[in-house]
Amino acid sequence: MSRAARSAVLITNIGELVTNDPAPGGEGGPLGILRDAAVLIEGDRITWVGRAADAPIETTTAAHRTVANGGSAHGARAVRDGSMDSDAPRGTSEVEQVDAGGRAVIPGFVDSHTHLVFGGDRAEEFAARMAGRRYEAGGIRSTVAATRAATDDQLRARLAGFVAELHAQGTTTFEVKTGYGLSVADEERLARLAREVTYEVTFLGAHVVPAEYADAPDAYVDLVTGEMLAACAPYARWVDAFCERGAFTPAQSRRVLEAGAAAGLGVRVHGNQLGEGDGVRLAVELGAASVDHCTYLSDADVAALATSETVATLLPGVEFSTRQPYPDARRLLDAGVTVALASDCNPGSSFTSSMPFCIAVAVRDMGMTPAEAVWASTAGGAAALRRADVGAIRPGARADLVLLDAPSHVHLAYRPGVPLVARVWKDGSALAER
Amino acid sequence: MSRAARSAVLITNIGELVTNDPAPGGEGGPLGILRDAAVLIEGDRITWVGRAADAPIETTTAAHRTVANGGSAHGARAVRDGSMDSDAPRGTSEVEQVDAGGRAVIPGFVDSHTHLVFGGDRAEEFAARMAGRRYEAGGIRSTVAATRAATDDQLRARLAGFVAELHAQGTTTFEVKTGYGLSVADEERLARLAREVTYEVTFLGAHVVPAEYADAPDAYVDLVTGEMLAACAPYARWVDAFCERGAFTPAQSRRVLEAGAAAGLGVRVHGNQLGEGDGVRLAVELGAASVDHCTYLSDADVAALATSETVATLLPGVEFSTRQPYPDARRLLDAGVTVALASDCNPGSSFTSSMPFCIAVAVRDMGMTPAEAVWASTAGGAAALRRADVGAIRPGARADLVLLDAPSHVHLAYRPGVPLVARVWKDGSALAER
Repeated sequence: MSRAARSAVLITNIGELVTNDPAPGGEGGPLGILRDAAVLIEGDRITWVGRAADAPIETTTAAHRTVANGGSAHGARAVRDGSMDSDAPRGTSEVEQVDAGGRAVIPGFVDSHTHLVFGGDRAEEFAARMAGRRYEAGGIRSTVAATRAATDDQLRARLAGFVAELHAQGTTTFEVKTGYGLSVADEERLARLAREVTYEVTFLGAHVVPAEYADAPDAYVDLVTGEMLAACAPYARWVDAFCERGAFTPAQSRRVLEAGAAAGLGVRVHGNQLGEGDGVRLAVELGAASVDHCTYLSDADVAALATSETVATLLPGVEFSTRQPYPDARRLLDAGVTVALASDCNPGSSFTSSMPFCIAVAVRDMGMTPAEAVWASTAGGAAALRRADVGAIRPGARADLVLLDAPSHVHLAYRPGVPLVARVWKDGSALAER
Repeated sequence: MSRAARSAVLITNIGELVTNDPAPGGEGGPLGILRDAAVLIEGDRITWVGRAADAPIETTTAAHRTVANGGSAHGARAVRDGSMDSDAPRGTSEVEQVDAGGRAVIPGFVDSHTHLVFGGDRAEEFAARMAGRRYEAGGIRSTVAATRAATDDQLRARLAGFVAELHAQGTTTFEVKTGYGLSVADEERLARLAREVTYEVTFLGAHVVPAEYADAPDAYVDLVTGEMLAACAPYARWVDAFCERGAFTPAQSRRVLEAGAAAGLGVRVHGNQLGEGDGVRLAVELGAASVDHCTYLSDADVAALATSETVATLLPGVEFSTRQPYPDARRLLDAGVTVALASDCNPGSSFTSSMPFCIAVAVRDMGMTPAEAVWASTAGGAAALRRADVGAIRPGARADLVLLDAPSHVHLAYRPGVPLVARVWKDGSALAER
């Protein structure tokens, strides 16, 4: 569409803008923090970022009107310039102006690891675990039964609820895995339903061996790498395998991942959650975008990650909800590994969908600074999905932003559990407001 | 006002109703859980609780209309009966009917320990602490300086923001302490501002010795027990003292608490937060309603609490945010102590206002079951404030209720960080809805 016809939003009076686009020598390290900043959105993209005083728009303070939640907005403004290096008038776009009231704006969260298409829940298993029972991967099978029993519309309604929940909490990009179907027909429909809500669909037929293949796991891998992969690949961008004792062996995982890669899918791995193992080594060898969990790592694992393009995605909700030891993010960061945080939202081991909660736990228990945790939840998630268009606030990026009810990104860790998301834009459209 | 003229709300189709009003032999232990339940609200009170099928109202299913968030509502219904033991028609009340959609309803949270009247924040101190610095009580003084520098209107606006935050998270009764003024004039205005938003105001002049009395702490105690108490008592229901190394000695704390009691105030104590000490003993001896923190307890402390009317109020946000060891709720519960959970919302040691977050942490790290944690956050808080009118859903109680976006109270722990509060009623009025 023509630039003049696009909708435009100027967010001004941003007390702290986390860009994840650091200027050389700028403040805030990798967060690239700007003070007293503004962001111009045109259509679905960010077209200008800078100091509010330099914003490429004619400001008419008298035209402001107060809106809910302390901000203010008005329309009918003439954009003078959509770029940083031209003074040419642009013409007739209508520009909504939003006053951030000195609060913080950050990139939308990128949650690179969720399992959101499923039936039932496992509240009773959770309560029993809190009373002392240990978490084991086999509990997945109870969700498989509930998922198979659900209709498409039931799963779709549930998924829509989760998507609304993610948006309300500031998550603007999210991955969804299959893996609670574990038959050709059920995995295909989970992939299809996931594809209705996100581009980032991961085929996880190799989540756990279903009960009906308990005595013939290799036959199940034959199915996953054959008919099931063929049915799911049209909907998926990624292939994943749960390489863990109780799930799939390294050899089985390799078969699945190589078959997926041969079908054109990118590789991700669940590994090193319940003990040391071959997950990280396999992920690095196969050039995976990410290896997820990384709770138990050898020095060799850390060294391999540090020299690879593979992101280590840590999932604080899992350890919180299973009472396992937390992964050591500090060790990974100090070694130079790229770290992402994700929710792993699923009904068994981590039923949180809250990236702010993950940030708070990562800061308390995993040795991350608030800045590192916020970066890992935005730019880190984007790296884990190999996405250059999200996770940062810079010209050309998707207009995915979160206005916080707080003066600083630090408050996401400093105020655990408190809903601090005041407004969310996804592809330039306001998604959630309170 | 006449009963017929009062507004009325019938909440129906409640999948799980946590009443905290157990029937002998009923389900759910102290939670007094009812299934397929309904609650009738008339004016500011609950007037009927029972099975939905037995609700004292003429139901006309065809009149339902769907409302936001999955519920449904309609008006213009005739209440037949507001009590459980009469069939007499009541006449002409308008009854709004709310369909809970099978979801859970719990009593509004009772947060019996907050410090919500203050200026500034301490995000930098928090970040430094996360990088390794230890928490010490002296940090309170930096908030004292910011609070003294703030105008009444600035403090009032800040407080109003916190109250909205509490309501949105399901807290319908909350205590607010003074303690960031520490001069007669400043403590008086904090008590006055707190009294504008809650009946549960606590005079905490004995929070920490202010810098100007650093060399003369007993002279400060003279001020607290004299002119400062006289100025604050008209606004306060409670007196409190921080009996801890670095704050006030047991002898100083006793002077403050006894002076407060003599002025007609109920007693509460901050004690045993940073190490074993005399806080619990003093609280029990003085018949305090609650002793708060209780992180370091001797066997004698636990035994004293178990045979007293003093509630042990645990504050999970503090240990989460200071990386101290968590208090052992299990030990207290097994000894028969009444346990409450509260947020301790304050800018230094616990800047959460989220009771669901406190529940999640208490279940993970303090040995509470989800049921115990929910009870402690509702009925437990009410006991800590010696309030019989809140913390339970039974006829005669205040109509303070929370509709959860979840089928069970367990989800408050099972889904950490996720905003699950769908609707809140306070004194029979809908406060927050999303």
